[in-house]
Amino acid sequence: MNTPRMPHIGVLPSGALGTIADVSGVTVGHCTLDQGAIQTGVTVIRTHRDDPYRHKVPAAASVINGFGKSIGLVQIEELGVLETPIALTNTFGVAAVAQAQIRAAIAGNRQIGREWPTVNPLVFECNDGYLNDIQALAIHETHYAQALDAAAASFDRGSVGAGRGMSCFDLKGGIGSSSRVVSVAGRDFTVGALVLANFGRLPMLTIDGVPLGRELAQRKSASTTASVSKPEQGSIIMIVATDAPLDARQLKRLSMRAAAGLARTGSVYGHGSGDIALAFSTAWTVAHEGDYIATPPLLNDARLDPLFHACADSVEQAIVDALWSATSVTGRDAHTRRSLRDAVPDLEQRLKQSSA
Amino acid sequence: MNTPRMPHIGVLPSGALGTIADVSGVTVGHCTLDQGAIQTGVTVIRTHRDDPYRHKVPAAASVINGFGKSIGLVQIEELGVLETPIALTNTFGVAAVAQAQIRAAIAGNRQIGREWPTVNPLVFECNDGYLNDIQALAIHETHYAQALDAAAASFDRGSVGAGRGMSCFDLKGGIGSSSRVVSVAGRDFTVGALVLANFGRLPMLTIDGVPLGRELAQRKSASTTASVSKPEQGSIIMIVATDAPLDARQLKRLSMRAAAGLARTGSVYGHGSGDIALAFSTAWTVAHEGDYIATPPLLNDARLDPLFHACADSVEQAIVDALWSATSVTGRDAHTRRSLRDAVPDLEQRLKQSSA
Amino acid sequence: MNTPRMPHIGVLPSGALGTIADVSGVTVGHCTLDQGAIQTGVTVIRTHRDDPYRHKVPAAASVINGFGKSIGLVQIEELGVLETPIALTNTFGVAAVAQAQIRAAIAGNRQIGREWPTVNPLVFECNDGYLNDIQALAIHETHYAQALDAAAASFDRGSVGAGRGMSCFDLKGGIGSSSRVVSVAGRDFTVGALVLANFGRLPMLTIDGVPLGRELAQRKSASTTASVSKPEQGSIIMIVATDAPLDARQLKRLSMRAAAGLARTGSVYGHGSGDIALAFSTAWTVAHEGDYIATPPLLNDARLDPLFHACADSVEQAIVDALWSATSVTGRDAHTRRSLRDAVPDLEQRLKQSSA
Amino acid sequence: MNTPRMPHIGVLPSGALGTIADVSGVTVGHCTLDQGAIQTGVTVIRTHRDDPYRHKVPAAASVINGFGKSIGLVQIEELGVLETPIALTNTFGVAAVAQAQIRAAIAGNRQIGREWPTVNPLVFECNDGYLNDIQALAIHETHYAQALDAAAASFDRGSVGAGRGMSCFDLKGGIGSSSRVVSVAGRDFTVGALVLANFGRLPMLTIDGVPLGRELAQRKSASTTASVSKPEQGSIIMIVATDAPLDARQLKRLSMRAAAGLARTGSVYGHGSGDIALAFSTAWTVAHEGDYIATPPLLNDARLDPLFHACADSVEQAIVDALWSATSVTGRDAHTRRSLRDAVPDLEQRLKQSSA
Repeated sequence: MNTPRMPHIGVLPSGALGTIADVSGVTVGHCTLDQGAIQTGVTVIRTHRDDPYRHKVPAAASVINGFGKSIGLVQIEELGVLETPIALTNTFGVAAVAQAQIRAAIAGNRQIGREWPTVNPLVFECNDGYLNDIQALAIHETHYAQALDAAAASFDRGSVGAGRGMSCFDLKGGIGSSSRVVSVAGRDFTVGALVLANFGRLPMLTIDGVPLGRELAQRKSASTTASVSKPEQGSIIMIVATDAPLDARQLKRLSMRAAAGLARTGSVYGHGSGDIALAFSTAWTVAHEGDYIATPPLLNDARLDPLFHACADSVEQAIVDALWSATSVTGRDAHTRRSLRDAVPDLEQRLKQSSA
Repeated sequence: MNTPRMPHIGVLPSGALGTIADVSGVTVGHCTLDQGAIQTGVTVIRTHRDDPYRHKVPAAASVINGFGKSIGLVQIEELGVLETPIALTNTFGVAAVAQAQIRAAIAGNRQIGREWPTVNPLVFECNDGYLNDIQALAIHETHYAQALDAAAASFDRGSVGAGRGMSCFDLKGGIGSSSRVVSVAGRDFTVGALVLANFGRLPMLTIDGVPLGRELAQRKSASTTASVSKPEQGSIIMIVATDAPLDARQLKRLSMRAAAGLARTGSVYGHGSGDIALAFSTAWTVAHEGDYIATPPLLNDARLDPLFHACADSVEQAIVDALWSATSVTGRDAHTRRSLRDAVPDLEQRLKQSSA
Repeated sequence: MNTPRMPHIGVLPSGALGTIADVSGVTVGHCTLDQGAIQTGVTVIRTHRDDPYRHKVPAAASVINGFGKSIGLVQIEELGVLETPIALTNTFGVAAVAQAQIRAAIAGNRQIGREWPTVNPLVFECNDGYLNDIQALAIHETHYAQALDAAAASFDRGSVGAGRGMSCFDLKGGIGSSSRVVSVAGRDFTVGALVLANFGRLPMLTIDGVPLGRELAQRKSASTTASVSKPEQGSIIMIVATDAPLDARQLKRLSMRAAAGLARTGSVYGHGSGDIALAFSTAWTVAHEGDYIATPPLLNDARLDPLFHACADSVEQAIVDALWSATSVTGRDAHTRRSLRDAVPDLEQRLKQSSA
Repeated sequence: MNTPRMPHIGVLPSGALGTIADVSGVTVGHCTLDQGAIQTGVTVIRTHRDDPYRHKVPAAASVINGFGKSIGLVQIEELGVLETPIALTNTFGVAAVAQAQIRAAIAGNRQIGREWPTVNPLVFECNDGYLNDIQALAIHETHYAQALDAAAASFDRGSVGAGRGMSCFDLKGGIGSSSRVVSVAGRDFTVGALVLANFGRLPMLTIDGVPLGRELAQRKSASTTASVSKPEQGSIIMIVATDAPLDARQLKRLSMRAAAGLARTGSVYGHGSGDIALAFSTAWTVAHEGDYIATPPLLNDARLDPLFHACADSVEQAIVDALWSATSVTGRDAHTRRSLRDAVPDLEQRLKQSSA
């Protein structure tokens, strides 16, 4: 079997790597736990190479559906900056990872919680309980450190890191990434996305406009009992990076466009799905101690449309990438999620036919 | 030329009328101004047949992109109820229509602004300035009254009422409507949508997953100068009605799913597009003067998913319906918007081919 | 009777004028209607002397209690800028004033609604229905123009402009203003407030920490039927200006501190009271057409505390100023509101005693 | 020295216990760590005696200033219910306590994270780093269990539980509680408050309208170097309980009135202060598995004013109670916070004088 070629979403060009790391300075690392009933992990996104507490990046989030247990968003909404790396893990691993982030921040800056304020850990999560024995609370502080150490511009996608145990459209989900380059007023800017995809029921699956899931579900339900009526218990975390010079208000606007990309894959933001997007800019930083009055570069709002398109396209592409990159996984109680490519051997043909 | 059959979005069945009026009690009326450079109007949605001030319906809105001048949303966010009919018009007609709503409320209840509090007018708008001489401020209070009087379960769609001068994907937009019926815990509930569609550039147009606009734009740009880079100055208002027993918090959740239906048509919620969804329930009302403690019926949140699907599908369908129902219009300075059917004579074939 | 000296709230010094006009460039004008049952008006705040549409000022609002009908806040929340003067009037005058703002914007820039987007009118309101025959809809477009023309750094307070018919703590309310100067990192910044005070029941009235209203209400209820149980139908609009270099996110934070100043006067943000604060900065503007990337000056959030204190103090002071400046007014149906000074002849002594 | 009598805030009567436990069913427990440099703890509020996951209580929060690291608010905003006890601790103890809540929820319901969704831990925090060696991460899961086990209607206030290491107005802060009883439409309802008070600089301290802190600060600065210019690094968590039948939207409105009570004590919601209020109702519960359509009792919004007054008064009273109940504490690096009563031996006289 040849590897089917992943469709390119939309008309905007991808960056060189085709991942969030096309936004210069952004790196990603994983720690993957693959031990029988334990199928889970941690993924870390570093926004730049400097100390994240001393050099905070502007950021903002859109909570599309707040059935989620992520931590750190209250302060980001108020202050508009990140001060730790961004961590992703399973729902019951959030506390351990937050603790690890606190410890790392203190190690880097002993003034934290003394002369300086405390630190705001930022941890996102999805529930990987179908494949992973989430009640085992298998994520420990060391797993965060390992993922952080592994952060690089080149990184794996699919059934790795926080994505190890995730499901998506009743198939294997996980980590996906992508990028788009747009021209604004004669300058090129990059938008990159990284998703932790763990949402959707099979009949909803839509790839590049093709309602693939509907047909797959019909085929499946011919042989087995339909499970369509079961509610979603998934989620998706969508991290959007850009080198365009935006402030927190504008990044909130940008993050909202992740909802458009998500919808195009078939999601209607199900009740039980914690759908959250966070966007950050690498174009400037806020010094923890520094000038009282700064003069950051800020793009005029009237020029945001190309970035909005890039955000929607890169999030849709990242979701497709998660499905494409995933490998089949068997976890607790012999639960199995097949990868899209294993489940649909004639995938490329099907997509071609439909878009012919 | 035969009338092309409009595709049915998704797998959920439509109600009997196929409009928002499938939600029992909901009626719609138009007042259309079609006089040379004046191509505009007013559309009114009545939520029930009783006095809307004395019998307030639960409601909530999601502001997907707040580049808009609608009025009334501050109080709805706080109190979770509507107390007037819902009015739609052009951006510069909002004030006249609000004034008319105030006058109508006072006429119905002389205690308003005296023994009782004032009334909260609710008026949504889009900018129809491409076809309509919006600077003429042609909308007057009487036009609201005419639209209100015309409200009925059977109503026109397309280039009528507030939709008269609207553009959508560089084609003729306007009023569209649809409905879906879902079963929740053994009971049938209806979700209906009515949109005022005035958003999008041609290359983005997607119908039932088919990227029709991309091809049309290529064809067009072969002969004329591309206009793709011009930013959107449109908007879309999406009104969602349901007979399911929901409160304001749940209706806010429901209204957010309009963003999914909108995205599937190609929108990324452009910077200049005021994209707002409002949802209301007809299952219960709040008496202006009445019992201090009521016991309204409320659906458990865990049962919302079918309604969320119905909202996304009916909004997408309503947008397609607006395009399908529209007739070509020429307005100020000989500006013309062709209807989708005029612009694409082989429309049905194209959609068939793509989804074959 | 000597004029009692108004207490100075807090320890921060006032600016030279003691009004919002201490923020350089800010001017205020009134149009007052005083004709029997018509006791109402319009007040306009200009943020600077240039065209407000071409040179937008950063701004943001906090809706403390959204029982209100103000218009323009949806777009300010999204874009973070003002593009018209700020207008205040009675609840049923909002539409006429918004219409007048639209007309003024078009007169200044014929491209609006054609080559350019439309304009976002900003009108705040309180319900002056106790003194004013609000059902007469007496506010017309010309009244906005008159108030705008009258805008100056020197302006009246009390029972003037939009404040003409307003009530506060069952006394005469209206327009109040004040300012505070603070030092941040060696530079002086000014915060100014202007309020339209129309809230509160007498027993709640607190002046500089002295629960004056409690005693006044006891005295009153000895002779008349207590009206304490009647709910509030008032509101307060609090406009905060500063020359400190803040962006919209920071201005939202600043505006929230108006809630602290308001609370100190006895308010608990009553159910029926539309309590809204808006803050803007004159330190920089956003050009409607201009550079794609600007570099506005922005104060570090860690330096905001002096401005927060100044906001709370100046809002409290402005409310006291409204009560102090008001003159008694008789309006519709012989309804009368006595000024604080008329109602409490021994005012200065009472406040002295309590704070002795 | 006699114990000075705490002033009664406002005119509404207190409940029998004078604490949040006057709301029937609500209980509170502490675990206090008092070992040299470790001066911290955990406080738990149980909303009722049943399983909190199976019987969720309606709840909502107002983030007055979001410089805080509390967890659980995203889901509460979306779903409007609590599903764990409410936990309070220091900023770096949040993760351990959240982990303990997860473990307790799983122990009670093995379906969590398997057949059922996961659980949303709710943990609030303040930074007690002045007295407590917060970098020691001294809070462990067992401390949550101990506080939970200790929950009772009778409980200590002051320098206990999560309040052990907290500072307030440069004095010793900690846990305070209070209640108020109001009559609404002939029925009595109780509002109770519990605060974790860790905010404010001395010059701001205001007790029952008396600006006590201003004078104390002047006295102090005569002998020592003024520290007034140091920014706040505190916070306050305000938990409001009621037996009035409210839904999440109404509880959000109620929680906002905590901001009024807080402001009256001198706070302007300082930049570095995470000021968050959460309100819940014990009048009804949402079954995790149960009827699809419930009919909860809901009070008409027009009747909320007495509850709003009770919320503001009980929060102000609870803050005063925290100061009154606190004992002086010495912690890390010999840092000491004196209690209000130790710092102001003539406290009762001073307050009497001022309010004479």
